[in-house]
Amino acid sequence: MPSSSAHAQCSEVPGWVGDGSAAAGLTGAAVTMADEAAELEEALRRQADTVRRLKQEKASPEEVAEQVAKLLELKAQLGTDEGKHKFVLKTPKGTRDYNPKQMAIREKVFDIIISTFKRHGAEVIDTPVFELKETLTGKYGEDSKLIYDLKDQGGELLSLRYDLTVPFARYLAMNKITNIKRYHIAKVYRRDNPAMTRGRYREFYQCDFDIAGQFDPMIPDAECLKIVHEILSGLQIGDFLIKVNDRRILDGMFAVCGVPDSKFRTICSTVDKLDKATWEDVKSEMVGEKGLSPEAADRIGEYVQLHGGLGLIEQLLQDPKLSQNKLAREGLGDMKLLFEYLTLFGIADKISFDLSLARGLDYYTGVIYEAILLQPQNAHKEEPVSVGSVAGGGRYDGLVGMFDPKGRKVPCVGVSIGIERIFSIMEQKVEASEEKIRTTETQVLVAAAQKKLLEERLKLISELWDSGIKAEMLYKKNPKLLNQLQYCEDNGIPLVAIVGEQELKDGVVKLRVVATREEVDVRRENLIEEIKRRTCHP
Amino acid sequence: MPSSSAHAQCSEVPGWVGDGSAAAGLTGAAVTMADEAAELEEALRRQADTVRRLKQEKASPEEVAEQVAKLLELKAQLGTDEGKHKFVLKTPKGTRDYNPKQMAIREKVFDIIISTFKRHGAEVIDTPVFELKETLTGKYGEDSKLIYDLKDQGGELLSLRYDLTVPFARYLAMNKITNIKRYHIAKVYRRDNPAMTRGRYREFYQCDFDIAGQFDPMIPDAECLKIVHEILSGLQIGDFLIKVNDRRILDGMFAVCGVPDSKFRTICSTVDKLDKATWEDVKSEMVGEKGLSPEAADRIGEYVQLHGGLGLIEQLLQDPKLSQNKLAREGLGDMKLLFEYLTLFGIADKISFDLSLARGLDYYTGVIYEAILLQPQNAHKEEPVSVGSVAGGGRYDGLVGMFDPKGRKVPCVGVSIGIERIFSIMEQKVEASEEKIRTTETQVLVAAAQKKLLEERLKLISELWDSGIKAEMLYKKNPKLLNQLQYCEDNGIPLVAIVGEQELKDGVVKLRVVATREEVDVRRENLIEEIKRRTCHP
Repeated sequence: MPSSSAHAQCSEVPGWVGDGSAAAGLTGAAVTMADEAAELEEALRRQADTVRRLKQEKASPEEVAEQVAKLLELKAQLGTDEGKHKFVLKTPKGTRDYNPKQMAIREKVFDIIISTFKRHGAEVIDTPVFELKETLTGKYGEDSKLIYDLKDQGGELLSLRYDLTVPFARYLAMNKITNIKRYHIAKVYRRDNPAMTRGRYREFYQCDFDIAGQFDPMIPDAECLKIVHEILSGLQIGDFLIKVNDRRILDGMFAVCGVPDSKFRTICSTVDKLDKATWEDVKSEMVGEKGLSPEAADRIGEYVQLHGGLGLIEQLLQDPKLSQNKLAREGLGDMKLLFEYLTLFGIADKISFDLSLARGLDYYTGVIYEAILLQPQNAHKEEPVSVGSVAGGGRYDGLVGMFDPKGRKVPCVGVSIGIERIFSIMEQKVEASEEKIRTTETQVLVAAAQKKLLEERLKLISELWDSGIKAEMLYKKNPKLLNQLQYCEDNGIPLVAIVGEQELKDGVVKLRVVATREEVDVRRENLIEEIKRRTCHP
Repeated sequence: MPSSSAHAQCSEVPGWVGDGSAAAGLTGAAVTMADEAAELEEALRRQADTVRRLKQEKASPEEVAEQVAKLLELKAQLGTDEGKHKFVLKTPKGTRDYNPKQMAIREKVFDIIISTFKRHGAEVIDTPVFELKETLTGKYGEDSKLIYDLKDQGGELLSLRYDLTVPFARYLAMNKITNIKRYHIAKVYRRDNPAMTRGRYREFYQCDFDIAGQFDPMIPDAECLKIVHEILSGLQIGDFLIKVNDRRILDGMFAVCGVPDSKFRTICSTVDKLDKATWEDVKSEMVGEKGLSPEAADRIGEYVQLHGGLGLIEQLLQDPKLSQNKLAREGLGDMKLLFEYLTLFGIADKISFDLSLARGLDYYTGVIYEAILLQPQNAHKEEPVSVGSVAGGGRYDGLVGMFDPKGRKVPCVGVSIGIERIFSIMEQKVEASEEKIRTTETQVLVAAAQKKLLEERLKLISELWDSGIKAEMLYKKNPKLLNQLQYCEDNGIPLVAIVGEQELKDGVVKLRVVATREEVDVRRENLIEEIKRRTCHP
């Protein structure tokens, strides 16, 4: 029997914010459906944030009291009557099940992505869900705290994979592969603060495409961007923009702005927050938390507001400070080449060279990029509003060398499609359209017109299965004909093969078309062909 | 950089046996490919077992010394020269990567299994890789010790899923679903002693099909066996046998043999070992470890050697002791019905009612089954030899009720296909046949006849991709034609589209068929159609 032991209860507001331990508060609560629980939980956390902010801002006591009342109401909804229910019936925080309808959408999205990867000649690999803990150590910078570790139960220390890039690099080094173009679609794990309504989960799919090998500059890099463009166009989820930058340009920029070498990576992480935070907040983190001089921060501030295309690249190649830096010059030269190739691919209009794009992960060494979906252009605003990142990637020429015992490098570039957000959008689209999605492919229901025909149904359905026909029957000895027809209506099954006493005598089966109610007697030996003729459309 | 810290070293033989901590000995060893390391590790463990056994059996000092020498040799192979390499480059113990060739085989196996599930009208769902720890508690009996737990990093206590059945039951209860036929294909995790050469892993796929709902007896149960039969026939991996039994028959048998009620489950676990151990070993565990009387064990011994078909069922329905037991009578009655349905499905010849089949998991309540592959019949032996279980399942009518706050039951029956063994067999078959497996689907390579045609290649390949053609090019500015043709040979690409200066002037592309070396000039506007005509076979 499930454990009925009592659980720690959420009694303090601070326990609900920030550090990933928020979910503990849910145990002991009412048995709730996972989605409802997660939504309530998030609402509660948001409300706790609000209360804390108001207190910090020294808001009026009335205002604070009002928000605290709302907070208490939410807590009451989550329930504290422990005696009533014995255990929690939910998926872990930040995760979800996929029901058959969601799976149908997921498979449609995967089809588009996989066929794009295959169109570009990619092979496919798979790796374990966990890696040796040390395999992940030192690859993710400040994000390392989000890695899920397994419990030490004796034996190796293991962690759940955080992305598919580090396992790929480990795979290349382990198998001494210096040349491959592969895709990998699998779930990855991050102990982040989930926001499930916006498609942010702790367990989520990544669809990765990478090209490893020593090649001429920017040709594989351009192909990765072409792939992102093809996938986002193919999914038909609205307008998008792909931002590109280069770690060498960023590092050159940091150098000429007076950032000490030792602070490049940590300042990079702060710049990466510009898509969600204002420049003022970012600057205050640089100066306050990271100890950068306000002057250096202001110089960075001037650069990171720049974005454009070939024109901006030419301008920066002439920039008196930046052009003096070797790294920046290399990065800008390659960026120019990249835009030439993107123009030949006919996709340069969707690409923006953006100096504020930083990407947090430690392993990037060259070009980096991120695709965002744009909301419909608003007449009152000058710029389209970003509704979130759906793909990202870049060049990581040093990562494989970190695993090779002799440090041999294998240059790599790749892209990762983050599809949870895309799922969310597709699900919303389907719900809005009230389109009916079939979740099975059944061609025919084997039904009985009278009682005592179970044996005949079993014999017939077995013949159909053995001939490759997708067939179902009701698991009742004597089902009513009406119930059998209703089952077809409910599940979108197009045909019913009805066995009856008269039909058995005549050596026929009555084939009924559910949509039109048309019925024809089909000779037993022609039945399979007739079902195929009516349901197998090329 | 990867951690270079020293690791605990294996210095004592006992550390290598039994408790799952064996892999610790591998850290600090040479950087080895995962497969080699795992094989060595397993050989070492087996050798340690041998030495221990010889000592227990008081073997001659010469014999012991000989085996100890072998053991030391194996340990030397694993390497102890810590200074040489800094870290371990391997996948975690009991896991493996899939390379593109293995993926091609895996996808072929999945295709056969999924199309069978769909032929039977199944929907598909997915659940997270981990569950709340308490969700798994109390479901697996003695096997619970093999569950992987996640580290407590603040928040919920989590465990990796051990099978797909318990998450399915949790899903049904959580969403109040009382009626569904679904499949689920995903990896599960068990901290078992791996034997990877025999297809036993710690991370492995299960392909589950289950029918939930209140139906007439044995109709869904028979369909599950039909599905196993269809899948194993479809995979063409040799002859097989499906053993069936019923938990009620087992419990009835235990009762009439004098096993106390409280010992039913633990004795069941011991009986389950009969496929790998002799009756003597099993009896000694029953009597020695589990405290059963030798007489009761002997009575069980008489029953568990029985196997057959309808004849045996009739015989046991007349058995003076067993027929007195209500549970056994119910189980035997349903078993009779099951065999009638299996006869209608035409598959009864592959099914054996076998009283020694027990299955370890706690949650089964009715019919249970297990499919094994048989080695080719050996003329010198009376019985075909089992080479391992590839599918198993049964009825679990109480599991969903364990999750429902009001204890509402949803009867379920299902089957799980364990495909790692099937992969191993298929891989061996492919290697033996020297059949060349393509790991990409590329239709055409875009090549250049002369230098300085990168731009033209980029323009052409972009057109092809946009028209849905699977196309590749070499990532070099000026690749040699010979290298481009060689790439096609190596990768099985059937066509080459060659751009050259003359062709550009003439508005054509030279299309070369790799296999025949035939070359034709195709007008640019007809190229896509021509490629499709030559490579898209229905």
